[in-house]
Amino acid sequence: MDALVTNTLLVTMDPDVSGATGALGIVDDGAVGWVDGEITYVGPASEVDAAADRIVDGGGCLTLPGLVNAHVHGRQTILRGAAQDVPEIEWMTRALGPIADHATAADGVVGARLTAIEALASGTTTLGEYATNVSELVASVYRPHGLRVVATETISEVTADRSDRDPDEPYPLDDAAGTAALDRAESLFERFADDPLVEPAYGPQALDMVSLDRLETITDRAREADRTVHVHVAQGDRERKQIAARYGDGATTVGILKREGLLGDHLLAAHLHGATPTERDQLADAGVRMVGCPSSITAIDGVVPPVVEYRDVGGVVGLGTDQAPGPGGHDALREARTSAMVTKAAHADPTALDAAGALQLATVGGARALGIADRVGTLTPGKRADVVCCDLTRPSIAPCVREPFHTAIPNLVYGGGDVVQDVFVDGVQVVSAGGIVGVDVDAVVTEAAERARRIFDDAAADWRAADSALVDAADRGRL
Amino acid sequence: MDALVTNTLLVTMDPDVSGATGALGIVDDGAVGWVDGEITYVGPASEVDAAADRIVDGGGCLTLPGLVNAHVHGRQTILRGAAQDVPEIEWMTRALGPIADHATAADGVVGARLTAIEALASGTTTLGEYATNVSELVASVYRPHGLRVVATETISEVTADRSDRDPDEPYPLDDAAGTAALDRAESLFERFADDPLVEPAYGPQALDMVSLDRLETITDRAREADRTVHVHVAQGDRERKQIAARYGDGATTVGILKREGLLGDHLLAAHLHGATPTERDQLADAGVRMVGCPSSITAIDGVVPPVVEYRDVGGVVGLGTDQAPGPGGHDALREARTSAMVTKAAHADPTALDAAGALQLATVGGARALGIADRVGTLTPGKRADVVCCDLTRPSIAPCVREPFHTAIPNLVYGGGDVVQDVFVDGVQVVSAGGIVGVDVDAVVTEAAERARRIFDDAAADWRAADSALVDAADRGRL
Repeated sequence: MDALVTNTLLVTMDPDVSGATGALGIVDDGAVGWVDGEITYVGPASEVDAAADRIVDGGGCLTLPGLVNAHVHGRQTILRGAAQDVPEIEWMTRALGPIADHATAADGVVGARLTAIEALASGTTTLGEYATNVSELVASVYRPHGLRVVATETISEVTADRSDRDPDEPYPLDDAAGTAALDRAESLFERFADDPLVEPAYGPQALDMVSLDRLETITDRAREADRTVHVHVAQGDRERKQIAARYGDGATTVGILKREGLLGDHLLAAHLHGATPTERDQLADAGVRMVGCPSSITAIDGVVPPVVEYRDVGGVVGLGTDQAPGPGGHDALREARTSAMVTKAAHADPTALDAAGALQLATVGGARALGIADRVGTLTPGKRADVVCCDLTRPSIAPCVREPFHTAIPNLVYGGGDVVQDVFVDGVQVVSAGGIVGVDVDAVVTEAAERARRIFDDAAADWRAADSALVDAADRGRL
Repeated sequence: MDALVTNTLLVTMDPDVSGATGALGIVDDGAVGWVDGEITYVGPASEVDAAADRIVDGGGCLTLPGLVNAHVHGRQTILRGAAQDVPEIEWMTRALGPIADHATAADGVVGARLTAIEALASGTTTLGEYATNVSELVASVYRPHGLRVVATETISEVTADRSDRDPDEPYPLDDAAGTAALDRAESLFERFADDPLVEPAYGPQALDMVSLDRLETITDRAREADRTVHVHVAQGDRERKQIAARYGDGATTVGILKREGLLGDHLLAAHLHGATPTERDQLADAGVRMVGCPSSITAIDGVVPPVVEYRDVGGVVGLGTDQAPGPGGHDALREARTSAMVTKAAHADPTALDAAGALQLATVGGARALGIADRVGTLTPGKRADVVCCDLTRPSIAPCVREPFHTAIPNLVYGGGDVVQDVFVDGVQVVSAGGIVGVDVDAVVTEAAERARRIFDDAAADWRAADSALVDAADRGRL
């Protein structure tokens, strides 16, 4: 085989390894090996029956499948710190928006580079990127960094300036913009048809931002070609008002999707915190997949996404970090910890989401949510070699014992912090001894700093005029 | 002067620097210098008027006062991962207890070494340690690591085995144990009377674990000598049952303390999540200080501590990480993020605790809570030089701009992760370029791993017999 990580605490996330439902498939003194990026061996290190061109000593490490960050707007990392600690209703329109409007496409590319670096450093091997003209980010950032990507092309028909939008009147929809966006999506599918690390998806932004006709067209195409439709669903008051304005009092996104026959397992719904329990049941029954973004939605809305509620009614759920302004960044291990903490708080129950459950959401759950669990999400022969080795001897996670139970599981989720040592995507090493292979991190940070300075300088007057709570905070010397 | 950190983004946490209430006292292109460990200069780098023997280039850094972790049981880091994701009622008695009972004093010392390393690496300069025979930890661990310590000697009169305790009957109190513990506390005050980095405190564990007579004696001595009494207050159902059993139905810890005239500014109350709003008002009015432990109490109890509630009625509040089993560790910057996140979730309000507020809790708030704000907590001439430099060019926190506001503040709290570069305590460097000065970290980790293996092996049968939810989780392959 090409490479073998051996003598490691193997956490396959494949319950079949243990034969128990919900099991993490833990193998003490385990090994995982691959050929041409395909996993060919998972099991005890002592039973490996093929020679390996490269041996990676996994002693002192926990080796698990690459983390899956299923919902990311990577460009916005160039705006880290631009908007947080403001009322939800201000976040986009008065805090982030006035600054984001001054970022160029080139700025966004540098932001996505920071996203890629942070993702890799925290053991993320798959990003569910969601962007307009997403192929630019895939081609110029994520693929050169060696990441696997589920690339969603944003399809929105709302082109009016944010400042011109009345929250209680349906936004005007621009048919030409929708057609152009859908064309971009189709080009995306064509462009990456032969790249096994890229899985394109349709991204009708939200039901209030596309026409029903457009959504029906997209759904038909997705069903025909077995593609994913990644859409923001039930993400709060602004959307609720728009749906009521467009479809009548009491109408909801989930209700309209159900009535129009648009639910199904082609659908990946982000957020869902505005969905009722009944609607969650309907979505789960229909096979709709969910991605929850606990840090982001807690930071921006003060709401904990219903990830365990959806999981517990049989729904498929993954985690995402969404965007850097607000939650701060794209560390997938920290997101696993945060998801457990805020879920315990929301349920007033320390058992509401355990370490194993958070780790499942961040790996196999994310892979299933993105529709790529046939390839990644667990360490299983036949799947692709997306593999992460975490150093259990770091002082933030040590000591770890394996009897009478593996404390490495809670320690990775709750302790952790700077423990990712080696990362492989599709069998190729992308992180080595904690460093990003082939990337001049300092150069990216320097360029990001220069671009951020220009963006914020250019935006200063607009930002002040928009008069969010952050303006007052800055004037009071708190920012 | 002895040393000068210069050309840095200075966040003094001293509102007088800006002249505005609640301001963080930010100085662009600032400098902080000290002589014999006493801060002699804080202000613009361009106005420094004395030569320095050592210049620390703070370019690209945010420099702030050392973080204060006001409530820590450091020994238990040897048990990291032992107990989490279980119902609150099981946590101590059936999950942590059966393992903790097999840890020796020597094991605890190694645990405290890990605590010290993790604390320093995250920019903590003061630990509020709370332990039985705390002088052992201070002398053999914290002081050799260069940390400042508020050292609380646990005073408990409960000696019966955990398994023998009936939750609905008052625990039997052992007067001799209380006398011995109070004697240890007095020895502690004597032993460290001349060490300016050690501030001893009395630690009557909780009202259900000491007699009223004992608590009155302690209170009298504390008032007379201007000392702190650090006590766990209103920490949940177990305590509530005990207080009702001992003092009658409806009795509460706060009610009894008030009735007996034991409230006052000598008192530092940990947790308080079981206190009513009226009781919180009474405590704050009496000048009682509070330390909240958001990760710990959320992880163990599913409850978010009332840190902003207490702050907002005028109470003094700091943060603590409590112990490693459950919340995972002692990273004070992560604790600032967690405190903001879980507080936003508990209040369903993204503005409930902002980045500046979380940073205040973790620095000046903690110093005030521990009663040492005359010496530390802000960067102010005349105070001691507890100084932390954070690298703003790390990819998890970059980019940071300073106009029209300082994104470094939210980025440090919400982004962050592995950004602490240099740490000084009392003017002495204890962390250099992210490494702990003079400490063989690998040796500590190795010894901790060996000790943890022995503890968990010895405890395995007891742990299984206690039959917490973790036994089932382990049997199902989730641990």
